Amino acid sequence: MKHLLSIADLDASEITLLLDEADRFADSLRDREVKKLPTLRGRTVFTLFYENSTRTRSSFETAGKWMSADVINISASSSSVKKGESLKDTALTLRAVGADAIIMRHPSSGAARQVANWVGQGREGISVLNAGDGSHEHPTQALLDAVTLRNKLGTLEGSHVVIVGDILHSRVARSNALLLTALGVDVTFVAPRTLLAPGIEHWINPSTGGPGAPATGTVRISHDMDEAIAGADAVMMLRVQAERMDGGFFPSHREYATRYGLSRARLDALKDGAIVLHPGPMLRGMEINDSVADAPQTVVLDQVTAGVHVRMAALFTLLVGTDSTDSTSSAAGISSASGDHR
Amino acid sequence: MKHLLSIADLDASEITLLLDEADRFADSLRDREVKKLPTLRGRTVFTLFYENSTRTRSSFETAGKWMSADVINISASSSSVKKGESLKDTALTLRAVGADAIIMRHPSSGAARQVANWVGQGREGISVLNAGDGSHEHPTQALLDAVTLRNKLGTLEGSHVVIVGDILHSRVARSNALLLTALGVDVTFVAPRTLLAPGIEHWINPSTGGPGAPATGTVRISHDMDEAIAGADAVMMLRVQAERMDGGFFPSHREYATRYGLSRARLDALKDGAIVLHPGPMLRGMEINDSVADAPQTVVLDQVTAGVHVRMAALFTLLVGTDSTDSTSSAAGISSASGDHR
Amino acid sequence: MKHLLSIADLDASEITLLLDEADRFADSLRDREVKKLPTLRGRTVFTLFYENSTRTRSSFETAGKWMSADVINISASSSSVKKGESLKDTALTLRAVGADAIIMRHPSSGAARQVANWVGQGREGISVLNAGDGSHEHPTQALLDAVTLRNKLGTLEGSHVVIVGDILHSRVARSNALLLTALGVDVTFVAPRTLLAPGIEHWINPSTGGPGAPATGTVRISHDMDEAIAGADAVMMLRVQAERMDGGFFPSHREYATRYGLSRARLDALKDGAIVLHPGPMLRGMEINDSVADAPQTVVLDQVTAGVHVRMAALFTLLVGTDSTDSTSSAAGISSASGDHR
Repeated sequence: MKHLLSIADLDASEITLLLDEADRFADSLRDREVKKLPTLRGRTVFTLFYENSTRTRSSFETAGKWMSADVINISASSSSVKKGESLKDTALTLRAVGADAIIMRHPSSGAARQVANWVGQGREGISVLNAGDGSHEHPTQALLDAVTLRNKLGTLEGSHVVIVGDILHSRVARSNALLLTALGVDVTFVAPRTLLAPGIEHWINPSTGGPGAPATGTVRISHDMDEAIAGADAVMMLRVQAERMDGGFFPSHREYATRYGLSRARLDALKDGAIVLHPGPMLRGMEINDSVADAPQTVVLDQVTAGVHVRMAALFTLLVGTDSTDSTSSAAGISSASGDHR
Repeated sequence: MKHLLSIADLDASEITLLLDEADRFADSLRDREVKKLPTLRGRTVFTLFYENSTRTRSSFETAGKWMSADVINISASSSSVKKGESLKDTALTLRAVGADAIIMRHPSSGAARQVANWVGQGREGISVLNAGDGSHEHPTQALLDAVTLRNKLGTLEGSHVVIVGDILHSRVARSNALLLTALGVDVTFVAPRTLLAPGIEHWINPSTGGPGAPATGTVRISHDMDEAIAGADAVMMLRVQAERMDGGFFPSHREYATRYGLSRARLDALKDGAIVLHPGPMLRGMEINDSVADAPQTVVLDQVTAGVHVRMAALFTLLVGTDSTDSTSSAAGISSASGDHR
Repeated sequence: MKHLLSIADLDASEITLLLDEADRFADSLRDREVKKLPTLRGRTVFTLFYENSTRTRSSFETAGKWMSADVINISASSSSVKKGESLKDTALTLRAVGADAIIMRHPSSGAARQVANWVGQGREGISVLNAGDGSHEHPTQALLDAVTLRNKLGTLEGSHVVIVGDILHSRVARSNALLLTALGVDVTFVAPRTLLAPGIEHWINPSTGGPGAPATGTVRISHDMDEAIAGADAVMMLRVQAERMDGGFFPSHREYATRYGLSRARLDALKDGAIVLHPGPMLRGMEINDSVADAPQTVVLDQVTAGVHVRMAALFTLLVGTDSTDSTSSAAGISSASGDHR
């Protein structure tokens, strides 16, 4: 695996490899007083963020630093972008400076793939990780959601996840649908008609997965939240992009909360063992009730913790590589990867 | 000690412990060519600043890095705050990412304590360090001022410190009064009536300090700077928050400088051995005369240097802990704390 | 060498020392899987940028981190500058915090030298590196250009470099002319009359260079690009400061590109082996044709890579020092410099 650009590029076995690696990193760190692995010592990782983000940038930065990488942050507001430099030249410059990987967030769908085409080819090619590109994909978010779901539900195959809210603008929804269906999870989207993305019925991972892979999950659309969440194993609430509220997409803030918010009553109606996810940042009182956000079924903070492990797994897999048949090259045997056991 | 939120939480012995620890760090570093201790290796420290600051943020960052911590900076302007996330969710997110400590500056008084209530309880609780909360407290500033005073004056108990300027808006003044009175220092505030905070006469540390603790110092208020500084051991000038000048608080910029500025003549009138402090940034020509700012009695840069040592002491005490009766667990024996002697 | 403020301060042998050191760092890193030298472990380097820059700041940050320094970034927008602190007090504060070096970019010509006067004197003095001061100098840019030229052309002495564009506002042009002439390179400036700096004919390094130093190169001015580049060994395009276009300096955007842009036809007219440089960020289509920017003769990305090596060489030379007669103290023997062989 050279880049992590899109869940659509991954088949079930590759996804499972990343989830397993993330779990191994979680195990490795759990036993340690000192959260510092030598895995990426001497590697240089740039974060290049054209949109603000606390959680994603700091999660990647933490993942890199815990593996002893040098992490250098670049935000668009302080970059040469202001002087008119093209994205291509910025990316080529970072490679020439010595980046081993570029972690990139950009408002344009497809930007990460473009950058990978520019800097990721050939012998000198470096890795690109998509940390969110427009309304296209956010693959590490879907991976961390899957780690959380798998750990909480015990298994993914055959389960049923309901994704609620602003599907139209959500790279999180798309990446999740592609990932979950690949692993045999059935997905139901719930949204007002104005917030459903066109072609949503095709958000099914096309990969066959090979022998032993689960049957692909299904995608269904509903406009009735109460009906949809009955029997669900997990409900994933999306962030309402509040700047778009009351602007033609919704009748009103209040009506949205009533029809598509996760209220206390809806939480209580979930089946036993069902869990609630949210990618954050949460708008309490809008898409999720304040007490629901803090309820024990709500695993938002587990998602955040899984995020660091998933990003360690992704950086490790792309920069050091892993042989899925050989457990000694995985996180469990991580200190041998760099030849440096400190 | 789990958090460092307010000097009002500390009694004389706890304050003295931190001052001693800071001095030990200063000694440790003085002998070293390589300013790098392994003390906090594998610990992750976030700075979360909702107000700009060069000196405080970079001082904490330096303190953390010199002890080999991973330090990750978050400024409000690039954070999820812009997307409407609550302070509570931001803090919980940082803990879930893996923070061992959050160093926080916020414009609201009490914000650091709120965050400590959210993230600092129980077995999973992490440490919170207040780097300035509104007009409430700035405990590491008071500690570094005390380190500087103690080193320059030889002793604190029985000395007399005059604090001049914008008391009303100053977290520095409050933290200093609480700290100094706990250690038996008499404090005089000098300010125009419009810049005195209500209840200032209660800015006396209520702690008894236990057996052997110094008698609590007194707090006095004066409107005559020349009278107040006669006989003082130290004069601490506060930053004039210039944006508030000429807006009802003062008659004029010039009159302020005349009545409350530290002129050359006032410097010359100080008793032998008296010193001048300022928390910075200084507005030369306003609260302090240009030549006074550079005079040998002015210890502003000693304060800055002490700041790094105090912040090392605070991070060390909160994250590694210290047993005040056992000198081997303190900075002197610091390399044993992590089991890593590099 | 205590500071790196201006190429005008350096004679031919000092320049050559830095170029050689940069080449040795390049060689050291080429053989290593792990790009991490212990050279500056325990040293603290601040970047203090009053103007935005992706490439220069991240290049210095990379250089520092690859040598294991602690690198702390300060940008003017988040600094105490906003509270009215003087540049002098900011610099003195950084020294008091514990900086071993300040890397500084500032819009005012001469700012770095002023800072060096304030913080760089005496036993406590620290190093200052000029990362660009107004329209004055940008010494590491000229050094990285020279490394690139020397490596590509084989030798500098006797070669001919044409510098094209906005000379008036260009610290890059000035530093290059001073450096190249010191090493015996002949320089031709090509620019519209309105963009020529006054006194440009004196941009010749006054240093004699001592025995064995090359004869000083010449400086010539031309307004005819085609005539100037015929026979040149290298063409260095400058960034057009687009905000100044059409404002009296140029007749029009299009006319500028026609008369002073590096078109495909001009590239094809260069002699065999000639190369094209640009300090970046490039405005493709303005000062340089899109296909020319990507042509094999264009060494823009080699310049970027050389930049990290030059900045490592500069930090190493200033902070650790080097004895030009003793090869064991140079980068080749770098691990002995810190007594730490990891």
